[in-house]
This record gives sequence, structure tokens and C-alpha cells, in this order.
Amino acid sequence: MRLIVSLLLLLVAVTAGADEGMFPVSELGRLDLAGAGLEIPATAIFDPDGNALVDGICKLGGCTGSFVSAQGLILTNHHCAFRAIRDASDRDHDYLTDGFAAAGMADEVPAVGYTVRITDSYRDVSDEVLDALTPQMAPADRTRAVEKAAKSISLRYEQEHPGKRAEVAEMFPGKTWVLYVYTYLRDVRLVYSPPLAVANFGGEADNWIWPRHSGDFSFMRAYTGPDGEPADYSEQNVPYHPAVVLEVAAQGVADGDPVFVVGYPGRTYRHRSSYHLAFLNDTYMPAVVDWYGWQIDLLEGLGADDRDRQLRLASRIKSLHNTHKNYRGKLQGISRLSLVEQRRGEEDLLREFTAADDRFTGQSDVLDSIGRIYTEQAAATPWEYWLRSLRSSPRIVRVAMTLWENAIESGKPDVERESPYMERNRRQTLDGLVVTVENFDPEADELILAELLERSAGIERARQLPALEGLDHGGLAAAFAGTHLLDKDYVVAAFDLSSEDLAAAGDPFLDLAAALYGPWLDLRETRKSRKGELDVLQADLLDLRRTFLGSEFVPDANGTLRLSFGRVEGYAPRDAVWYTPVTTVAGLLEKDSGVDPYHLPSRTRELAGAGDWGRFAPDSESGVPVNILYSTDTTGGNSGSPVLDARGRVVGLNFDRSWEATINDFAWNHDYSRSIGVDIRYVLWVTWKFGAGERLLAEMGVDPVAGD
Amino acid sequence: MRLIVSLLLLLVAVTAGADEGMFPVSELGRLDLAGAGLEIPATAIFDPDGNALVDGICKLGGCTGSFVSAQGLILTNHHCAFRAIRDASDRDHDYLTDGFAAAGMADEVPAVGYTVRITDSYRDVSDEVLDALTPQMAPADRTRAVEKAAKSISLRYEQEHPGKRAEVAEMFPGKTWVLYVYTYLRDVRLVYSPPLAVANFGGEADNWIWPRHSGDFSFMRAYTGPDGEPADYSEQNVPYHPAVVLEVAAQGVADGDPVFVVGYPGRTYRHRSSYHLAFLNDTYMPAVVDWYGWQIDLLEGLGADDRDRQLRLASRIKSLHNTHKNYRGKLQGISRLSLVEQRRGEEDLLREFTAADDRFTGQSDVLDSIGRIYTEQAAATPWEYWLRSLRSSPRIVRVAMTLWENAIESGKPDVERESPYMERNRRQTLDGLVVTVENFDPEADELILAELLERSAGIERARQLPALEGLDHGGLAAAFAGTHLLDKDYVVAAFDLSSEDLAAAGDPFLDLAAALYGPWLDLRETRKSRKGELDVLQADLLDLRRTFLGSEFVPDANGTLRLSFGRVEGYAPRDAVWYTPVTTVAGLLEKDSGVDPYHLPSRTRELAGAGDWGRFAPDSESGVPVNILYSTDTTGGNSGSPVLDARGRVVGLNFDRSWEATINDFAWNHDYSRSIGVDIRYVLWVTWKFGAGERLLAEMGVDPVAGD
Repeated sequence: MRLIVSLLLLLVAVTAGADEGMFPVSELGRLDLAGAGLEIPATAIFDPDGNALVDGICKLGGCTGSFVSAQGLILTNHHCAFRAIRDASDRDHDYLTDGFAAAGMADEVPAVGYTVRITDSYRDVSDEVLDALTPQMAPADRTRAVEKAAKSISLRYEQEHPGKRAEVAEMFPGKTWVLYVYTYLRDVRLVYSPPLAVANFGGEADNWIWPRHSGDFSFMRAYTGPDGEPADYSEQNVPYHPAVVLEVAAQGVADGDPVFVVGYPGRTYRHRSSYHLAFLNDTYMPAVVDWYGWQIDLLEGLGADDRDRQLRLASRIKSLHNTHKNYRGKLQGISRLSLVEQRRGEEDLLREFTAADDRFTGQSDVLDSIGRIYTEQAAATPWEYWLRSLRSSPRIVRVAMTLWENAIESGKPDVERESPYMERNRRQTLDGLVVTVENFDPEADELILAELLERSAGIERARQLPALEGLDHGGLAAAFAGTHLLDKDYVVAAFDLSSEDLAAAGDPFLDLAAALYGPWLDLRETRKSRKGELDVLQADLLDLRRTFLGSEFVPDANGTLRLSFGRVEGYAPRDAVWYTPVTTVAGLLEKDSGVDPYHLPSRTRELAGAGDWGRFAPDSESGVPVNILYSTDTTGGNSGSPVLDARGRVVGLNFDRSWEATINDFAWNHDYSRSIGVDIRYVLWVTWKFGAGERLLAEMGVDPVAGD
Repeated sequence: MRLIVSLLLLLVAVTAGADEGMFPVSELGRLDLAGAGLEIPATAIFDPDGNALVDGICKLGGCTGSFVSAQGLILTNHHCAFRAIRDASDRDHDYLTDGFAAAGMADEVPAVGYTVRITDSYRDVSDEVLDALTPQMAPADRTRAVEKAAKSISLRYEQEHPGKRAEVAEMFPGKTWVLYVYTYLRDVRLVYSPPLAVANFGGEADNWIWPRHSGDFSFMRAYTGPDGEPADYSEQNVPYHPAVVLEVAAQGVADGDPVFVVGYPGRTYRHRSSYHLAFLNDTYMPAVVDWYGWQIDLLEGLGADDRDRQLRLASRIKSLHNTHKNYRGKLQGISRLSLVEQRRGEEDLLREFTAADDRFTGQSDVLDSIGRIYTEQAAATPWEYWLRSLRSSPRIVRVAMTLWENAIESGKPDVERESPYMERNRRQTLDGLVVTVENFDPEADELILAELLERSAGIERARQLPALEGLDHGGLAAAFAGTHLLDKDYVVAAFDLSSEDLAAAGDPFLDLAAALYGPWLDLRETRKSRKGELDVLQADLLDLRRTFLGSEFVPDANGTLRLSFGRVEGYAPRDAVWYTPVTTVAGLLEKDSGVDPYHLPSRTRELAGAGDWGRFAPDSESGVPVNILYSTDTTGGNSGSPVLDARGRVVGLNFDRSWEATINDFAWNHDYSRSIGVDIRYVLWVTWKFGAGERLLAEMGVDPVAGD
């Protein structure tokens, strides 16, 4: 990967013991990797002048993937490939339940809507962005100016480099921005997935939980046109040849071994104030837990007796569950660790420090100003969260609002549009609409809307919305009977209509969208203004803390490529309990109750009974290791990240964190922050024994029987 | 303790690693105690010619106790002293909630109904018992003959040694019997008990569970007359001077240290057949779990809003919960370990062995015969368990039946009576009746009776009972309105009446008892007959197994004095989880949610905050060790047993087993069989800091601050 200009990131000098940190790969040279147990130099992982390990890693939807063969074979999580597997299924082929194994490349199934993103290069563009700002700007104008500058930089790059995709990422809020240049591969196909009972063993019950026994992996493959350039799906396409292929280490790892993880962690909030944390803890997360919990109950009830419907709602329920349980873990962790009080204590010391030092005259109210913003936001949250829920939870309103907003935004110059409606993003936005319409469940939408109308009673601004008048239960039924938005073709066509055309259509949900658009714009403006204010304050706070602590920080995760290292190691979740870091097939069989979510295919027991482990079981009684636990620093977006050993070989596939580590996003701690991966030996054994045979193993250069 | 004649018990040669076994103390000389890590000789534990450690151990109700001072101070479990603490409480003093600490000996409160039993001597009487049997006897006659022989031996001994109490215990069913000679001390007083929130921290949720944080201990004291002989309570009485005082080891133990437990384990069933196990697993335990669960729901509901009623029902609910959870643990363990199948496999091998060997001609059907008896018992269980529940679950029927049976049995010669009605036992039986009447809850009884009447619908023999006619809901209400049995004085007086007098009383529940007595006698006869048959078959089976395996066995627990040794050690309850064997106050605070059953007194947190540990915390951050886990072999009846270190000093107080070890009663296994005790350091720290100050510690020779 090419690094165009070294990033001016603020980094702490890392000692071998301190394994906190999702380090931008450009900074690896500053880290003591050898002290952390790694046996390869930083340049073998990231090389600004050539190819290195990170070039074997891609982004796949919201997940990370690794190239594990020269033929573009990608290893990622089953839950990342979930939609592709479901879409490949039909009445006669239930690939979710039974698993999927293409007999050969010709049988690989297109994963519609999937793209593979490869990072080509990046450079710091902070100066260009900051040039667009003036100190006098109102906060919302400031946010808009940053957005516009970022878009202009991206567009300019893309115009100069046709076929490339450019994105500006904010590293430290309000301070530093980086331009990332990507190649998108658009022909992605499903190669192999294990049965759901293997991939999702333990289901929601075990999600975020150790000990874990989940085979959460799948194989996909990227294709290009015959010329090697990105192309839409075509039978003429050929497998993509990645610049770097990661080696798969069939011998695995053991307790105590150093490992590292490379991937695209989403968001962390470790540099935020106690006020942000208190807002999340007291206001925002409880609201989400409440609303998601209500929706989970509803959707699970609707799907209970109807397998087709259950499948259609599965992704949605899974996603709701995932956040719901994550937030409950966070709430418990914040309380258990007294995190708000702890951060307040730190801020009190910071206040004393700044008050006593002339350099900070006039800055002593940074924390108070941040506090004021969150107090206001907390007060506004019942209304704001209700409006956001109304826009996104009932899918029909989501589609109507997107169509309406698209019509409005399309009338503006490209660079001034909201990002999803810029020419470069419109297709992806439309694809999203189509997927939503294909999975409509009008009854669910109607019940969700009715509940939101019910809940509006306690929210003054909601009660006063004229658009909601007449939308009682009877009104809702009539609206669903009269809408055209259940029709995919209609929605696709409507994506090119103006707001006048949409208004003339007389569709009840488009009319609702038009009526909600004003309040929605107000909310958007409020949020931009809040962000504009907070960006400045956050940047000041960061400066203060750096001076106070005399140390530098690793930037919060922001979806860009990061590396984190640690070891395979257990932890003590509570008094007198120690979790060891490797689970086995023996434990899998122990959990198997024959009842969902602990219901194994009988084949697992047969293979175990026969001791049919190949080379993958270090101990024939316990069988193949299933999942591993390690002390790297990860968050959402690290799903599918390879877990690499000291020599950079793939020994696992990251897919989750432990319950205590849900709090990671606010505070990492070596005592309890652990990530969970599928042991590569389980990946290989399952692939070999559950449908794919030796073919894929051979493609990865693994002999399932002979040792090293 | 004197051993009159060496017991002819069958013992396996014990190696240091094999810590299964509740060994009769007379057999310690055969064990490799040094190999197990003990630093004292067997004669220091049990000395047939003089006093030794076991003489510092007593039986206290159904529990075990240790003498820990020369003034008769007894250390036992809080749950063993529970009734005494509750009875000492009144409207102004809630000693359960607040704890109790006598300011001095004069303030110690009589524990009415409590006795302390000290073992004086014992001898094998198998020959005398077997002399009373002939091969031709019918099974029920055989059982009766054994019972009569045992009673005669006891009575003869007691007549020859006034003031002593003699009991014959069956060691191996149908094979060996031992006469135990006891002294009973009748003046027992409550000295100290911690608050319930300390003693029962974790409540039913944590019962049978590790990690545990329970301060389940209390101190009581035994008194004698001024002449040193057993006496009823009197102000003139003086503290009992035990022959041996156990030393309390304030320094405690650590992971890996050898420990042993001495006490009175109740019942184990390790030598029984697969048929017995299958009967318990498929029929008996599920019936108990169902019926106890129903009663728990009822009684908890009744006590929910009424603290007095809750207290009155507390012991009863606790006891139901304890068995209910224990049986659920056993059912889960039997299934998890495939214990029935495993024992069947052993029996198949035994069958092959006996079929191929001339010595066993004619004995090949021992197992089949046992199987037939359990098949019959399983078929009869709906009726039999229903009738037994009818006799014991509604307390009013229990009292009426006991009065009626007492009237009938009192008409027989003493040695032919059922044991509770023999002259030597009548007083204890009456005491039990009084306690029952004092805790009557007529509404609970009425609802339980109504439920049993409801359940009779599915049981043919129950439906045909004429006594139940007219006992619908209305009839029950009338019966409760018309009975005299709610009156304690009436019940005490009725205990001396004949059956004619009782019949003439016209009491609806005495009439019910009279009507149920016939079916009850039938059931008693059936059970005696079954036991008579099984005793012979069990004895034969034991012989067969001994020949087959070429090894000897330790007799099943039978309420007699036993020793078991092991180590302080953790275990793996499931894949990737390891339980370490010492919990601490830090973990206690971690569990404290402020809500029952995890609601600590604020004092614990204050003391912990101040690091006010005295000498009792090896690590000031984790604080005082609370509970310990060890691999000895224990069962119910071991409650209150001292946990002793390599030098025979008290380092803990046994009170429970781990969940996986509920299965102990059928199969001990070093992998999962663990007992749970209160760490002596927690006993001492709590006593010192929660009410009693240094007085009791000084009496035990412990300085709470200075080290060794």
C-alpha cells in the first residue's frame, strides 16, 4: 500500500505490555512489535513503498476480510455473508440451514449488493480541510464547511483518477482528516458457508459471551473483468488476484501466544468527556435498549410460526439483538466500573490543572461548555430519538423519506448534497432501497408505526405534528392499502422523480414523508450545529488533556485500517472464576442440548465419536479447538478481521468480544477486554468435513492430514 | 472415643490420589494419610484407647458441630441454628435480620428442641442381628426381624447403661450393623449468629453454587448440670467441658493445601444398581421436583407481603428449595454423565462374568430381581408418593396421622413399636409435633390439601378412598373450622389418648387420619417387604461385584461418623471455565447489588473501604477470604463439619457442595466433586466485627490482630 504523506498522528510510545490501542498501520514503525512478541518487522505488515500484509486485507460491507488464496478467495464471518447466503436460498435450497458449498468456481453464487474494498493509498489532508474554516463560522456552518471540503477533495481525486474511490476520514474530531483511496470490486460470490447450527451455535444466548463455540466463518471470492479491472458480475469475469495472500497456519495457536489483528474497527469514544458518557449511560442507551427490545419482541413474535417470514426478518432481528445486548453490556460495565464517576474525577484534576496555569486562561470552561451541549441533547432526546425512530424503524417510512430527501437533494449541486445523494453514492443508496423493499413486512411496519404514534402522546413536539393526525389504526390500514411503495419497480422509478412529481403521486407515505421533512431538516440542522460546536470543544479538550497528562493518544477508531496486538489469554470475569482462552469440540458437544440455539448437526457428534480430526486436534480427547480468546483491542467493524500469529499467519477469524469487553468502546482494560475469534483449525476442519472436502483447503495450501 | 470391637468393614486400600470415600473413623489406620498430605497420625484423629480429634466433634440436630473452646462453645452452620435464632426473636428483636451476639454467657438464649450428641463408643453387632433371621422368612418379616433385633440390642444396652443412648446403624444393607453409644446434652444455647444478609448472602440463587460468598456459621454452647451430667435447661447449669477441643487456625489455608472433613454424612447410594438409579431419575426425583416446586410457589406467594408469615414459613421453604435444587442438579448430572447407561454397562459386564463362572450358578438373576422390584415401585409411585405427600405436606394431616399412629403403636410392647413411638423416642416425637403446631399455616394447609385432592383424580387408588368424599373446597373449610388440632395444648394432651378416645373426639382431621390409616399401613407393609427383598439382593449384588472387581468398598454414608480427605482445589465446571477455590470480600462486594439475595449490610463495605481486616486478609486488596472449595467427599449431614488442615486445626466450616457435586450421592468424581466451606478467617472476622467483638475470639485463643 502506498502512503503518500506520513500521517501527522499523535501517538503514545508503546511498550510491550500496553496492548491498548487500535494503531493506524502507518505508525507501526513507532511500536515495539518485537517486545510484543512479533517475529516480523513492521514493514512486513505495512510497507509505504510496496506490498505487505495489510494489502491482503479488504473491507467487505461493514466487515473485514482476508485474501487467503491467489484466486481471490476471501475468509470472513458467516454473519458478514449472511444476506448473500439467504439470498442464494430458495424454496428448494435452504443454504442457511444446510450450509453452502460450491462444487467448483462455476457454481459460486453472486452475492448481490456486496463489494470488496481494497485500500490503495492515503494521505493527510487536515490542512486543506482546515483552510475551509474561519473562526467566525457558526457551528452548523462549520460542520457544513468541513463536509464540503471533504467531498471536494474526494471528488477532485476521483476525477483525476477514474475508477478509484476516495473518502476523507476524520481522525481526531475537528483536528485531523485523512484521504483514503480505494478500489471497489463489484463482483463478489459466495463460495462456502457452514450450516447455521455450526456458524451460529449458541445464537443470541451466546452472543457477546465467552466461553463460545461458534463457527462464524464463510468463504467468498472476488472477481474482476478479464482485464483485471473492477467489473459488474459477468460469466466472463475472472478471479481477482490480490497483491498479497495471507498464509493460513493450520497448526493454530496456544494459550500465551502473541497475536495481532488487522481490520477496520468502526467507532470508539475513549477521548470523550464524562458528559458524553453520562448522556449515553443515562439517556441515549436506555432509550435504544427500550425501543430495540420492543421491536425484538414484536418481530420474533411475527416470525414464530412462519419460517419464510422468520428468514426475511432474521437479519433485522439479529442486528437489533446485537446492539441491544451490546448496550446492556455497556450499561452494566459503566455501572460496575463507575466509569462516569472515574472520568469526572479525571476531569476535576484537569480543571484544577488548567485553573492554576496561565497558558489556559479562557479555556477553563471547555468542559462546562461540553456539559451544556449534552444537557441540551439529553433534554431533546425523547423528541429526537422518537423522530429518528419514526424515520428508520418502520421500513415504509424509511423508503418514503429517502425518496423524498433524494428528490430534494438531487436539485442541488453535487458537492452540496448530503453524502448518500451525491452522484457517486446514488446507486448504492438505491441498492439499499431495493433490498429494503424486497424485505418489506407491512404488518410489522404497521404495528411499529402504531406503537410510535402511541408513544408520541408523551412527547410534546411529536403530539403537535399535523402529519400524524388521522394516522390512528384505521388510518394506517388505509395508508398501507393505498401506497405504491410496496412495489419495487415503483420505488426504483420514483428514485428519479422530482419532489413535485412525488407530491403529485398522492401516495399516503410520500405525503407523510413530505410532512415530516421540515421537522427532519430542523433536526439535521440541530445535529450539524451540535457537531460543529463539539468538534471545536473536543479538539480543545484533547489539547488540554495532552498537556496535562504529558502523553499522546491513539486516535479513536473511525472505520480506517488499524492494527492491535495482544496475546491468546484468559481473564477473570468475576471472583473465583477464570476463563481459559481456547474452547474445543468437547465443550461444543457438552453444550449441545438438541434444542435451539444449542442444536448441533448430528455429523459433528459422529465425527467426534470417530475421532476424525485430521491434523487439527492437538488433543484427540478434547478435539479440534473451536474458538479463541485474546487481548487485542477491537470493536464493531473488526468482524472478519484475521487473527495473525507472531509470523503474520492466519490463526483465527475475529467475530466478537466478551461481555465485559462491550465497554471497550469507552475504556479498554487488560483485565477484561478480550476479543473472540474462530480458531483457524475449526475453520479448516469444518470446511473439510461439512461439504467442501479438500478442494478449498488445497487452494489455501493446507493438507488436512499431514502435519508440518 | 472407645472402640469396643474393631468393625469388620470392607475397605479398599487407599492411595494418596484417590480421595473418594467417607471412611469410618475406625478404619483410618488402613489409609495412607501421610500420602494425602496429613501431618498427624491416624491415632491423633481417632484413638480407640483414648481421646482424639473426633471426640471434639458432635452431632447437633441433623448437622455436625465442633467444640472450639473448653467451655463447650460449638461452631456450626447458621442454617443449622436457624430455628433457634428465629425462636429467640420477637417483635422487638429480629435476630435473623440483625444477627445475635450474647453480651456474656448469662445472655445466651436457650435453643429449645436442640440437642448435642456425643459419640461414646461403638461395636459391630452384625452377628447378633443376623442371628434373628432365617432364610425362609418372608421379606416383610425379615425387615421386621432386623428392626426388632436392632431395637432389642439398643434397649438392652440402655438398660445396662442408664443415661446413655444406643442406636444400631446399618452399614452395608442386609449385611453389617453397628451399635453406636451416645451421650445427649439437652441444654444448648445460642451464642452468636451473623446477620442473615451475611449468613445467607446469595440465598436460594447461590445455594449449591460456586463461586459462593456465604457466612453460613453460628456459635452455640452446650451446658450440663452442675454435676457435669446431661440436664434439661436450668440457670444453675454450667458449660459442658468437652473431652477434646479443636484448635482454630486463624492463618487459614491456601489453594493446594491438604484438608480433611469429619462429620456425620447422611445417605449415599453408590453401591446401588442401575435400576435404583433409573427409578430415581425417571420416576421418583421428577415427582419430588414437581411437588416441591408447586409448594415453593404457593408458600413464597403466601409470605410475599407478610414478614411474620414469611418468617414462620422460612425454614419450610428453605428446606423445600434445598431438596428441589439438589434434585434438579442430580437429574442434570445423571443425564450429563449418562450415569444410568454407564452403570448398565458395568452390570452387563457383571452379568457376563457371573454367567461364565460356576460359582455363581443360580445367582445370575440378582440384577433381574432388583430390576423387577423397581419396576413395580415405579408403577406404584403415583399412588405411594401421593399418599406420602398427603400424610406429610399438609401439616395438619401430619399432626393428625402422628397422633393416630401414636395411639395405635402405644398399645404394643415397646420393642415392637415403630421407632418414633418407642418410650425412648416419644418425647422427641412430641417435641416435633409441638414445633409443627406452633408454625401452622392453616391457609397453606388448606390449599395444599385442595391441590392433593385435585391430583387424586389421576390416581385410581386415591380416587377410591372413601375418606376423601365430601372433602371438596367447602368441606375443607368446614374441617378447618371444626378441628381442635390448631391448639397446641389440645395436641399435647391428645398425645396420651387411645385410638378410641381420639375416635370419640369427632375431630374432622383425626377422623381423616383414622380413615387413611388402613391404606397407610398397607403402604408401610409394602415398603418393609420391598426393603426385606432388596436387602438380601443388595447384599448378594455387593458380593458379586466384590468378586468381579477384586476390590473392596467403603460403605455408603449412613449418618455415622466418617472422615474424608482431599485438597483445597478448583475445578472446571465446563469447557474453558476454571473455578479457583477461594472467594474473597472483594468478590462479595462485586456481587452486592443492594437487592435480595445480594444485599450486604453497609458495614461490610465500610470495613472493606477502611481495609479493616485485622490479621485475616492475606491480600489487603481482595480482603478476607470468604468461602473455600475442596475435593473431599461429603453429603447432607456434613453441614457444620469442621474443615481441618494437615495438622488437624479448624480452617473452615463445611456447608454445601458445588452444583456438579449434587451427583456425589450416586458417583463421586475428582473432576467435579467439590464441597464448599466458610473460610475460618471469615468466621473470625465477621464474629469480631459484626457484634461479638474480641470476646469469643479470645475464648478460642485467637488474637485478631497479631499474627503467629
